[in-house]
Amino acid sequence: MADPWHECMDYAVTLARKAGEVIREALTKDIDVMVKSSPADLVTITDQKVENMIISSIKEKYPSHSFIGEESVAAGAGSTLTDNPTWIIDPIDGTTNFVHRFPFVAVSIGFVVKKKMEFGVVYSCVEDKMYTGRKGKGAFCNGQKLQVSKQHDITKALLVSELGSNRDPEILKTVLSNMQRLLSIPVHGIRAVGTAAINMCLVATGGADAYYEMGIHCWDMAGAGIIITEAGGVLLDVSGGPFDLMSRRIIAANSQVLAERIAKEVQLIPYPRDDETN
Amino acid sequence: MADPWHECMDYAVTLARKAGEVIREALTKDIDVMVKSSPADLVTITDQKVENMIISSIKEKYPSHSFIGEESVAAGAGSTLTDNPTWIIDPIDGTTNFVHRFPFVAVSIGFVVKKKMEFGVVYSCVEDKMYTGRKGKGAFCNGQKLQVSKQHDITKALLVSELGSNRDPEILKTVLSNMQRLLSIPVHGIRAVGTAAINMCLVATGGADAYYEMGIHCWDMAGAGIIITEAGGVLLDVSGGPFDLMSRRIIAANSQVLAERIAKEVQLIPYPRDDETN
Repeated sequence: MADPWHECMDYAVTLARKAGEVIREALTKDIDVMVKSSPADLVTITDQKVENMIISSIKEKYPSHSFIGEESVAAGAGSTLTDNPTWIIDPIDGTTNFVHRFPFVAVSIGFVVKKKMEFGVVYSCVEDKMYTGRKGKGAFCNGQKLQVSKQHDITKALLVSELGSNRDPEILKTVLSNMQRLLSIPVHGIRAVGTAAINMCLVATGGADAYYEMGIHCWDMAGAGIIITEAGGVLLDVSGGPFDLMSRRIIAANSQVLAERIAKEVQLIPYPRDDETN
Repeated sequence: MADPWHECMDYAVTLARKAGEVIREALTKDIDVMVKSSPADLVTITDQKVENMIISSIKEKYPSHSFIGEESVAAGAGSTLTDNPTWIIDPIDGTTNFVHRFPFVAVSIGFVVKKKMEFGVVYSCVEDKMYTGRKGKGAFCNGQKLQVSKQHDITKALLVSELGSNRDPEILKTVLSNMQRLLSIPVHGIRAVGTAAINMCLVATGGADAYYEMGIHCWDMAGAGIIITEAGGVLLDVSGGPFDLMSRRIIAANSQVLAERIAKEVQLIPYPRDDETN
């Protein structure tokens, strides 16, 4: 049977590459920064410009499809996931990195039908790495097949996570105590490159064994989520239950055993769901 | 006046590139891992092989020079810095990354005469980025001149640091509480790519505004230290006093004002000096 979403996926790759060009061009110029939910939650004109470009291009080609985009939601659009084919877009994952020219900045496009991830595209545009994953057809980076690592022993695992942009003292305390608990198991280490999408792609390459985070959004996970599972990894909720794209939390690991071991250690931080904020 | 260390620096670049080839080749094969001071302090045959290759090559050409190398010190060699021209070598900065194939691994070579840093070479060998700095002559990455960022406001700064390999509960607590204090100022964020040398080079490029860490060694700092200062940055002790290469601690920032602001926030962790461990 022909792949019904093949053309959509090719278009997502084309748009991600075009968006990456806009971002790279913007990195050579002055960047105006605005603040969103906290002094560390930033947005720029480029985020908005890139999201508009991507969404308007897709709308023209697929007028019946739905959209959830980081900047559209910030501007008041809804973020309820329906059964309709839905494009979930983060125009710049790693806006703080972008603002500082820290060289890890991604365009993330996820495509979800009947609430199931069908394909994902993450373009790490400074590194020029195009990550893709298509349900049942594997995950790739610049054409090279990806495979998660085989390290299932938590005491020998390398994790990726983030300190996050929330500066609420209680939340920060839990973020840090979670890291302390994991480090004390011990794990080999925890790295943080500043974007959920690239952190997750690093798990897909086998360069890290697992990623976990709370407080992120569906647009941070929808592109890379299917890249992880197609590279042989698993997605789990931080509670240990099934992964839920709208829950604002994730464990993405090379294996069920590693994901469950992390879930056992991590204390939950209550965030409103993405589909509760409408 | 001709540069008396020009030839040495050229040789360091050649050796770092050769070492990088050995490391990249090793990344394609199985890696045997051994443990040093803690379950998260790792070493491999490649660390030892690369250090032997670098030191024996330099000894042949400059028999009167001195050496401080991470693996030689681990094997019992001294690490007292004298006035003699001294090569300070970390064959693989980011051994844990190397073991996991997390793509940030550096060869670091620093050259110090009369206890002053003369030049430094840091080769990020997976990225193929050659960073160099020569006293009075600027810092470069793959031939492009480096310049630190201009962000002197700590509340808008992006920092790099590490959670480190020490798993002592008290030390870990201080490492994390220091991060909490800095995040609460607030800062824009803290990133951690897993190698001191590359973290410092990211400050030299302007991609991050400052780096701080305690518990690292002279071989982690000697290559990148002069790259930072030649890119217009400053080195400071975490106490706020003058930087001391053998002290096992550093703040490397785009400016004195940012370095001092970080020093004000960070609680000291007592580590024996590199030259006390002999």
